[in-house]
Amino acid sequence: MKFDIVKTDKDSRARAGLFETGHGTIQTPVFMPVGTQATVKALSPDDLIQLKAQIILSNTYHLYLRPGTGIIAGAGGVQKFSSWNGPILTDSGGYQVFSLNDLNKIKDEGVYFKSHIDGSKHFFSPEKVVQIQRDLGSDIMMVLDECVPYPAEYNYVRKSNKITIDWAKRSLLTFNNTGPVHGYDQEIFAIVQGSTYADLRTECAKALIDMDFPGYAIGGLSVGEPKQAMLDMTSVCTEILPKHKPRYLMGVGKPEDLLDAIERGIDMFDCILPTRNGRNGTVFTTFGPLAIKNSQHRDAFIPLDSECDCYTCRTFTRAYLRHLFVAHELLVLKLLSLHNIHFYLRLMEKTRSAILNQSFQAWKKEFLENYKYYDEIKQNNK
Amino acid sequence: MKFDIVKTDKDSRARAGLFETGHGTIQTPVFMPVGTQATVKALSPDDLIQLKAQIILSNTYHLYLRPGTGIIAGAGGVQKFSSWNGPILTDSGGYQVFSLNDLNKIKDEGVYFKSHIDGSKHFFSPEKVVQIQRDLGSDIMMVLDECVPYPAEYNYVRKSNKITIDWAKRSLLTFNNTGPVHGYDQEIFAIVQGSTYADLRTECAKALIDMDFPGYAIGGLSVGEPKQAMLDMTSVCTEILPKHKPRYLMGVGKPEDLLDAIERGIDMFDCILPTRNGRNGTVFTTFGPLAIKNSQHRDAFIPLDSECDCYTCRTFTRAYLRHLFVAHELLVLKLLSLHNIHFYLRLMEKTRSAILNQSFQAWKKEFLENYKYYDEIKQNNK
Repeated sequence: MKFDIVKTDKDSRARAGLFETGHGTIQTPVFMPVGTQATVKALSPDDLIQLKAQIILSNTYHLYLRPGTGIIAGAGGVQKFSSWNGPILTDSGGYQVFSLNDLNKIKDEGVYFKSHIDGSKHFFSPEKVVQIQRDLGSDIMMVLDECVPYPAEYNYVRKSNKITIDWAKRSLLTFNNTGPVHGYDQEIFAIVQGSTYADLRTECAKALIDMDFPGYAIGGLSVGEPKQAMLDMTSVCTEILPKHKPRYLMGVGKPEDLLDAIERGIDMFDCILPTRNGRNGTVFTTFGPLAIKNSQHRDAFIPLDSECDCYTCRTFTRAYLRHLFVAHELLVLKLLSLHNIHFYLRLMEKTRSAILNQSFQAWKKEFLENYKYYDEIKQNNK
Repeated sequence: MKFDIVKTDKDSRARAGLFETGHGTIQTPVFMPVGTQATVKALSPDDLIQLKAQIILSNTYHLYLRPGTGIIAGAGGVQKFSSWNGPILTDSGGYQVFSLNDLNKIKDEGVYFKSHIDGSKHFFSPEKVVQIQRDLGSDIMMVLDECVPYPAEYNYVRKSNKITIDWAKRSLLTFNNTGPVHGYDQEIFAIVQGSTYADLRTECAKALIDMDFPGYAIGGLSVGEPKQAMLDMTSVCTEILPKHKPRYLMGVGKPEDLLDAIERGIDMFDCILPTRNGRNGTVFTTFGPLAIKNSQHRDAFIPLDSECDCYTCRTFTRAYLRHLFVAHELLVLKLLSLHNIHFYLRLMEKTRSAILNQSFQAWKKEFLENYKYYDEIKQNNK
């Protein structure tokens, strides 16, 4: 793996990078559309190519349970299985094991859990999760960690950190003792935990930095904590994480959160918001979010976002999209997801350009100014 | 409107034609994908262009109720509203008024009914339905008729015929006394009813032929009657319908039904089967229908149909499609609908070529021979 910082912002930790993977080079900062079950909900690989998506997130826990690791390995890896020929990062499934299962039992050796699909019993160890990701063939694999819920007691988090650090060590050992099974290089990222405790974040990060992973993620944020805590913990981590390695803030977030985190030195993001909100009829636009079902759009023969050049905005009016949404027509789920992903990907592109041009702060200010426009209209109408 | 018969089969009534509309020329025989609510379920206009769909069916009843005629008229017609720039045929809504509503009241002046969406009260007269279709701007509009359910008493059908004939007359009068509102020509088709009674079909057809409509549909079939009755009634109608005008068999049907009806002189079809079956996981292939959820496809790294060149078959394996289907992933609804529509459209193209080459019977035989292949395997395994 090769990760190069092309430019760093003069006034912040924001940076623009290039990140080589087994399936192509990624320009950072990058947003990774979420394709949990080896499909970005409602979008085809062709749609993703047209959107210029650079890398897709998938999920070890979900793919292991369904369709099963063997089938994806048999297809030649998750890229061939899903016909997405770009890079794929697989989350380890730590988050899912803890969030989708009331009945999980965490031990030093790993975690015992029941399938959310059929209740069948399963066991994940850090070693096993690396091996599964070898079989899945993700370009970037993630270590198994304990994703601590929010809020959590200091002492619980301190103990949990020990497990996360131990598991990271064992993951790296397994990673180094095994090789790719699908003919291209894979990388593994560690995950910094520590809830909202700065000292525990630092402790965890330092231990993981000592292991010299190719990249680092910050996990256990965007799980209900105040936004300021999320940003503070991000800063605590990026303060000490090695500058020359990629940094991935897991599960974040809203457009404005991405800019705040980039400012603090984050390179990679994933979030379900653009696709989930798309399916719920909430649309991200240059001038702020809008709800397509609102009756004001009934006869609005204008695009969702006058500044957007995605297929949805080039082709359809709000009136038509509202009709599809109100009439429960499938097509709208794709059209709004596509627009929202486009919005996130272009946001990252524009931010990268701004960093390269040393105009990050001005760009961020301009974006936020526009982005609160609908909100201000609402306030003024009250 | 201009309809030209390019070639007639030497051994049957099958014919290949060219049909000019306000939004382009249609090659017949033609299958019209169903876009009831101004969208072919799960497919975008771009998908339909790539599939080389020639004309889309939409529905007066549905569009009148939602989003409302005014909104579609305001957009400049249903083509502009939906961004489908090809021809659109709108069914009158007669079928929906009678099938979606237990509470409808048919009178000489028209039909009183309640909305299936919110129970609100409405009234359709033949005159009003023509006017709505003027506002919707469909290239081909259909007259309001009484779609008789199956089975129906002879005397009931005889009386119903009188209403259907009277309404057709009034529809044509309104059509002739009004003009297009969106700047392009529209046409109107009459609908032959008469249930499964040959003499009543003949009586209805003759009365409508006397009115000299630009085209004729055969309605009230594929509503539960035996297949032979459907074919017999089709023959009774095509025996006397004018040769130089297009003939449309409404709501039919399976691939083999289309070939049987073409043989009897039908030019146009619509049916929900390819899209509805796609959403249910039933796929049409050269070798017969298959159910994608069957466990035999779990690790089948082959396309749905080895003879198909649609996006789905060029890109994905049965194993992946089965995974998406079992995991309730939205993308599969599009991919299977797209394949099935492709199958129907290519079936019509190949049939047209065969008619042009005077090889219709040989083509039909070859198609049916292949099409029963999976069925024969199943029989042999019993």
